Amino acid sequence: MNSEVYAQTRMVLRPMSTPPFPAGFWARSSGWRQAGADYCSRRKPGAPYLELMWTVEGAGILHVDGAEYQVEKDMVFFLLPERFRYYRTASTAWHFRWLTMDGPAIISFFYSLQISPEPRRVGPCPEDDFESLLMLLSEPSQRAQRLATATAFKILLCASAPTSTGNGQNEGDSNPLIATAVQEIERGFREFGFDVNELARRLGKERTSLSRHFKTVMGVTPSAYIARKRFQLATRLLSLTSLQIKEIARQCGFLDADYFSRWFKQRSGVSPGEFRFQLFDT
Amino acid sequence: MNSEVYAQTRMVLRPMSTPPFPAGFWARSSGWRQAGADYCSRRKPGAPYLELMWTVEGAGILHVDGAEYQVEKDMVFFLLPERFRYYRTASTAWHFRWLTMDGPAIISFFYSLQISPEPRRVGPCPEDDFESLLMLLSEPSQRAQRLATATAFKILLCASAPTSTGNGQNEGDSNPLIATAVQEIERGFREFGFDVNELARRLGKERTSLSRHFKTVMGVTPSAYIARKRFQLATRLLSLTSLQIKEIARQCGFLDADYFSRWFKQRSGVSPGEFRFQLFDT
Repeated sequence: MNSEVYAQTRMVLRPMSTPPFPAGFWARSSGWRQAGADYCSRRKPGAPYLELMWTVEGAGILHVDGAEYQVEKDMVFFLLPERFRYYRTASTAWHFRWLTMDGPAIISFFYSLQISPEPRRVGPCPEDDFESLLMLLSEPSQRAQRLATATAFKILLCASAPTSTGNGQNEGDSNPLIATAVQEIERGFREFGFDVNELARRLGKERTSLSRHFKTVMGVTPSAYIARKRFQLATRLLSLTSLQIKEIARQCGFLDADYFSRWFKQRSGVSPGEFRFQLFDT
Repeated sequence: MNSEVYAQTRMVLRPMSTPPFPAGFWARSSGWRQAGADYCSRRKPGAPYLELMWTVEGAGILHVDGAEYQVEKDMVFFLLPERFRYYRTASTAWHFRWLTMDGPAIISFFYSLQISPEPRRVGPCPEDDFESLLMLLSEPSQRAQRLATATAFKILLCASAPTSTGNGQNEGDSNPLIATAVQEIERGFREFGFDVNELARRLGKERTSLSRHFKTVMGVTPSAYIARKRFQLATRLLSLTSLQIKEIARQCGFLDADYFSRWFKQRSGVSPGEFRFQLFDT
């Protein structure tokens, strides 16, 4: 073991014997590795924590329960306690970052995310968040350990986003068609009759494939996206103006104020009038 | 209702009918209010979410199940689904920020934090995080909703920190004695025999009251803080150097390498040698 080897990995671990503060789960450790061609690692079943690995550059091979997966840049996979895993560098180099989280509620929270633990393409590794996590984990104060847990949680939620289309980002910014679709929605959602058919027409695209593509990149259908824009505008107008409900309905693209009120209540649990009353019940 | 009233509150709500992505809990809404003397609000039991309220300036009165609490600057309280609450401005003004989180796992996660929902002093309201939350909640993309949930989770963990000593911060920075104690630990933890007695001696303070004070401000006892500094140094030396275990023990303040190994294993689950082997099992 020479010092060159040591500069290729880094790890910070919270002492297991002392949960840092009362909670259902915590950040436990994090690190990174610039692995060379001869790197391989095993994990026996039974380690009582969730592990997340995010590839920054290069490629690895993951073996799990007899299956073999190629792991590339922008891909994430998870190691769960009950399975035996084995992984190694695929060709000449594999640079990845990882974190572990433990606590009685972490595994059930992972399952609530409804994603596969196998390698999935989600987008570039959030290296700044991983760097903050390393720094926070190495500081013993309870405040730092709380922030470490919040940072690990943020990385976990980013890592469980819908599989990206492989263009290096999982939002519209980097996808010209979807970026244009989002702009078109921003421009049009206040108009009566603006819907996914109209959106497809304006973009000169076929509705079904546009919807599917939009959902893959944005995580929501264009219809749901338009509805949310209208709902947010409605709550904003109800909070910030004294406009009548009928006028607010119109500004959100609804000609029929009663239909608007039913639509709003379905989403918020209360009618537009009750929503405003609750906000201003002085 | 005039426009002046409207400028004194702001609220962003995610539509209830559509969970933004699969998870155990989500950010649901957030807002702030500059409440005047005549402000009061009720909440009936049964609303299926957790609400967090953080006072920025001024004061309010919270009535819950027959009890009455004064709520001041830097104090947080929580509203749980099952209880009837009523709150109002205490004197002339009450400025607070709030958020709600929903989802099947949010209430059990709140209980895992082992804090009282009643008003507690925790430190200044993290207004930047609340502003980010407002912005993220108003954006319909799944990515924004994931980041909104991570931000709400961060605020929740900060709000559940141990009650501060009332000096406006819950870390050592603002407390001269504890800041000096932390510096003394940074200087001394590598030395053999450095412990809480030695720390108290160097500061010219009585050990028991120093420990209690340190725990209140930092959330951990000075002994645990010293042990964590030593543990972090040990993991760093094991990862980044090829020093012998005996030498690492010495640099962490242990004269007896066997004792160090048992101490390390108790905390990490593995011996120092195994820890290094796992890190470098190429």
